[in-house]
Formats: sequence, structure tokens, C-alpha cells
Amino acid sequence: MVQLRNDERLDYLLAEDLRIIQSPSVFAFSLDAVLLSKFVYLPIQKGNIIDLCTGNGVIPFLLSTRTKGFITGVEIQERLFDMAKRSAQYNRLDDRIRFIHGDIKDMPKKLGYGKFDVVTCNPPYFKTLGKEINMNEHFAIARHEIYCTLEDVVRVSSQLVRPGGKVAFVHRPNRFVEIVELMRQYRIEPKKIRFVYPKLGKEANTLLIEGTKDGSPDLKILPPLIVYNEHNEYTKEVREILYGTK
Amino acid sequence: MVQLRNDERLDYLLAEDLRIIQSPSVFAFSLDAVLLSKFVYLPIQKGNIIDLCTGNGVIPFLLSTRTKGFITGVEIQERLFDMAKRSAQYNRLDDRIRFIHGDIKDMPKKLGYGKFDVVTCNPPYFKTLGKEINMNEHFAIARHEIYCTLEDVVRVSSQLVRPGGKVAFVHRPNRFVEIVELMRQYRIEPKKIRFVYPKLGKEANTLLIEGTKDGSPDLKILPPLIVYNEHNEYTKEVREILYGTK
Repeated sequence: MVQLRNDERLDYLLAEDLRIIQSPSVFAFSLDAVLLSKFVYLPIQKGNIIDLCTGNGVIPFLLSTRTKGFITGVEIQERLFDMAKRSAQYNRLDDRIRFIHGDIKDMPKKLGYGKFDVVTCNPPYFKTLGKEINMNEHFAIARHEIYCTLEDVVRVSSQLVRPGGKVAFVHRPNRFVEIVELMRQYRIEPKKIRFVYPKLGKEANTLLIEGTKDGSPDLKILPPLIVYNEHNEYTKEVREILYGTK
Repeated sequence: MVQLRNDERLDYLLAEDLRIIQSPSVFAFSLDAVLLSKFVYLPIQKGNIIDLCTGNGVIPFLLSTRTKGFITGVEIQERLFDMAKRSAQYNRLDDRIRFIHGDIKDMPKKLGYGKFDVVTCNPPYFKTLGKEINMNEHFAIARHEIYCTLEDVVRVSSQLVRPGGKVAFVHRPNRFVEIVELMRQYRIEPKKIRFVYPKLGKEANTLLIEGTKDGSPDLKILPPLIVYNEHNEYTKEVREILYGTK
């Protein structure tokens, strides 16, 4: 049993035998979060994993199907933190997934430096530019760099991960150069990148990038991930990622 | 008429009504040079364009079909410079294309700072690492950073191009992070990147990148360029680039 509040729904988590609390007025997970969860390296048997800007916890739940390690999710918005925590209880995953309500910038001090094998983050994509943002507060915080900038995300990830550990992000290609520069500045060497193209013949609209703390330079550009085929249906690969079927 | 030396051949330049002197023991142009020639921005009616590490001049010849501007090619190997020059004469292009025998590092002083609208380069791809290189000298110079490093190429390109002018390179993806960092260091802002994948489902093996001197950050990742289809034939797009037919 789980208590749903206001307009919350208990949605199925795609291919997985899990459910997750979502609310259209606050947050619903995106394809980007799903792609990051499948893209990142994970130790299978054990490990200490952390997801920053976790929202309603979609990434920790998806990661939990790929690893027996312990997963921490950090979310600054109390409403979303509360949804994530109730979803963990509903799925009986609260022994393997914990959610922390707080600011990612406080986590290295709170959780320790270099204690994590893997750090993931699907951060806010857009700079705020100091303008009035025309949307509700929950969306604004999830999408705009109000509480944390890209540099905060990269710096905190670097502080949390152990030497040799992995850090993976999903972001927009127009921030690509900045991401790569920040990763190197904070000693996370980019090792694999995958560009996501909505369709063959279209520009990439998403990028997945993973680096190794204090790794040696050796970058691979993985095969292109194409989302829709020429009939505007999901491609085989995306159907498999989303629904586990071809 | 043209004088051919030793094992030189007078090859057709693909879709174009041009011929080019090549020699299997010295240098033959690659798909990469052709892709760069089609990728780079060019002013159509006029302009001052320079190709560094030009080899037998394949890039200037291909660019000459897209612009009425004046094109300079720079090559350090006398044997290749001489082939390029004779090809220019054969094609009656010596009024629009000139070749210079020299070191690219001397060109800013010799030709002037900020005098070019467009700079292209298909540089040597591999670091030398100080090892003995097991191939003939001409191949070694074309493929390894013996006479110029990637940093030389980027620095010289930046010195030659005017503010707002374009610089385009073709290279291997494993040098990607280094290229982007060097471009920014020398004030060439990356603006468009295209990854070349040998086949759908394979890692990229080539990257095309263009930047603007003193440009503002705004990067596009262009559609993936797939070289072979599932039957191991060139894709439509590559056939069109190479032969002008679909």
C-alpha cells in the first residue's frame, strides 16, 4: 500500500517490475533518465552508487535492476524526495535504495569524499540567465540551474567518486564542450560518449557521457542511438530499452 | 599534358571533372579528405582559403569546385608539393590554387596573421611517441606528428584565420577532447561536429569539426554520417559525396 497525494499516479516503470509515483504537475521522468540508467557502467554484485538531482528517483529504481549494490538518491525538492521515498517503500527497495533530502553541494561533507564507485546525474539542462521563468516552481528547479549549476554537478561528482570510479551524465549537445572541459578540470577523464539522434538525418538532441576519475585519456564515440525510425515509431533498440521487447 | 614520375598515376577526382596525380608509394587521398572538403563552410563567390598539410592537394582541388575564392595549399614534403603543383597545372587551376612548399609553422609570418576566411586541415593522426616508425618516410610524415603536432595545427590555423572566419579539421575520435580543448585555447569556438560511423551499430572512427575564430559558444552535433549499409555497400549519402550519384 502507498499513499498517493493530490494528483499523483502510481505508474509502471516500463520494462521493470517496479512502480513509481509521478505527478504531472511536479515531475514525470523522461527518456533521458532511462537512457542514462542503461548507459552507465555498473558493478553487478556490489558497489556504492549515488544519483544526484534524482527527482522522483527514477534512475535509482532503474539502476537497482542492474546491480545488487547500494544506491543513494539526492533531491533538493521536498515534494519529489517524498515521492521517491514512498516509491522505495512500495517497491520494498528501502534496504537497497535510500533517498536524501538535501543540496548536492553538501553531500561530500555529509557522505564522505571518494566513497562512491559510480555517480550519475541527469541535471537541469538550462541556464537561468536571471530571467523570470514562466513555469511552475517544481518544473523550473528540475529544468533550470537554479539550485545547482553544471559546474556544481561536475565538482560534486568528482568529490564523491573514488579514484578509478565512474561518473555519467546525460545532457544537451549544446553544453557538450563545457561538460568536457569541466570534467577534465575536475579530473574526470571522458571515456565514452553516445549521441542520441531523434531520427537518422537529424541533429543529435541528447548526449550521454561517462568518465573515469583520474583515468587516462582514451575516448570512444559509441554507435549512434536513433530514437525513431522512418515511420516515426521507436527503433528496435529504443523499444528494447523502454519495454524490454524488440 | 603532364609529366608523371616513377609510379605516379593520373587519377580521376571522383565526381569532379578533375584529375590528380597520385602515387601508391607516396600518398593517395582518403575518404577523410573528401568528407572534410564537403563538410567545411565555404564562401561561394570569393574568399581567401588555406589548406594545411595538403599532401597531393586533394582538398584544394575539391574545394575549388565549391568556391570561386583563391585557395592556398601548404605541404612540407617536396615530392608531394611537386605532385600537387603539376596537378594544378594539368587542371588549369593554377590561377585559383597555389601550392607552397614549406612548414605550416612559418606560414603566419610568411602569409600574414588573420588574412584567411577559411582554414582546413587533415593533419597527421598519430602521435609519434619517439618510436621507430615502421613504414616509408612519406607515409610516416603524412600519418604521424613528425613535423607538426595537433597543437601546431590548431595554433597556426588560429593565427591564419580572421576573426569570424572558419577553421575545419578531420581527425580520429580518440583525439576529440584534445582537439576541442586546443581549439578553445586558441580562441576557435567549436560550432559544428559530425561523427562518421563505419556502419550503424559501430563506434565512430572519424570526426569532422568546424569552429569560428572568436565565435560565441553554440555547438551543433550534425546528423550521423554512416559510411556502409547492412550489405557493406556505401550508403546513399556517401555515394553522393564520392560520385555525385545516388
